[in-house]
Amino acid sequence: MTTAETKFYQQLKVAVAPWADLTDAQWTQLAAIFRHRTAAKKDYLLVPGDMVHELVFVCHGLLRFYYLSADGTESNKAFIAENTFAGPLGAFTLNLPVMYGVQALEDTSLLVATYTDFAGLFDEHPAFDRLGRRLAEWLLARKELRARSLLQQQASERYLDFVSQHRGLVQRVPQYHIASYLGITEVSLSRLRRALAQSAHDKAA
Amino acid sequence: MTTAETKFYQQLKVAVAPWADLTDAQWTQLAAIFRHRTAAKKDYLLVPGDMVHELVFVCHGLLRFYYLSADGTESNKAFIAENTFAGPLGAFTLNLPVMYGVQALEDTSLLVATYTDFAGLFDEHPAFDRLGRRLAEWLLARKELRARSLLQQQASERYLDFVSQHRGLVQRVPQYHIASYLGITEVSLSRLRRALAQSAHDKAA
Repeated sequence: MTTAETKFYQQLKVAVAPWADLTDAQWTQLAAIFRHRTAAKKDYLLVPGDMVHELVFVCHGLLRFYYLSADGTESNKAFIAENTFAGPLGAFTLNLPVMYGVQALEDTSLLVATYTDFAGLFDEHPAFDRLGRRLAEWLLARKELRARSLLQQQASERYLDFVSQHRGLVQRVPQYHIASYLGITEVSLSRLRRALAQSAHDKAA
Repeated sequence: MTTAETKFYQQLKVAVAPWADLTDAQWTQLAAIFRHRTAAKKDYLLVPGDMVHELVFVCHGLLRFYYLSADGTESNKAFIAENTFAGPLGAFTLNLPVMYGVQALEDTSLLVATYTDFAGLFDEHPAFDRLGRRLAEWLLARKELRARSLLQQQASERYLDFVSQHRGLVQRVPQYHIASYLGITEVSLSRLRRALAQSAHDKAA
């Protein structure tokens, strides 16, 4: 294992620690189902309709998850940066192809496990059931936040939330991808940013 | 406990059986956190913004879950009939008020547990962690199906899916509530039903 890989597994260990109290032996079992994978900037890891059921942990870099509509329009669903999990657990449970695509926005390093391998651990030890529960709850919570944002917030609130929740990402994600995530046009996003900058300037004056 | 209540707890036992292999003692622990509650037709069990975190099992009757937009428009999110679970697990995890309301469309009998009580069981025995995992996965799968339907299907497909997935509900749910669930107007739904009936008639002729 390279030094970089050792560091990535260490990141995964830190990420799962609050969710399940794993012994060293259990951690070794968990680590064994994850494989290291890299994606170059702009690579597509998944396209809508693929029958892939993988649990992903981003070690380094940035992914965007997007929907593709019938007329070919993409809508960004989520940005997943380092130390974050992602996975189509709902689609896996239903044995359906994934509905979204995944593209790397930066050179990205991932740890990837099939959900089948992950589910295989549930019968090995109850600690893995707990980990699975926490992961599913976390995915539910993330979906909940996204649904709230889309349903209840104005574009300007959504933008400010994006900035505060994804600190640092505003500089890393192209503007047109942020606009697509917010559900507005790039022109509207520019206007919104100018208005917010003006308002901050007026307050400071 | 009344005969009806005994039957309701039996329904709950049957519903959780595929998810977790509970001993009699564990089942007793689980049953103890659920309370029987009734709602009369048209009663509101929850309104958007309530800080309620309950896990609900419908024993008899029918609930509709709805969103309320800023301009007062309601959009039906789900219909939950007998032998089905519902609960704002995502909102609970985030400690947020619920975003939706719940209204009984028929006289309804429920078994209700607070999520706090449910979570209290997780440290009692691993079987409850497994039950919690399965419940969270099931909720994720339901959200996944709903998102797919809204994103990918035409209104006519959505209606046919509703009819096949909710067999019997078409007769039980008022047309305007079905239209709101499908994201179309009541007039469009009538037109759609006439077109489908005509097409079935043409095929039969």
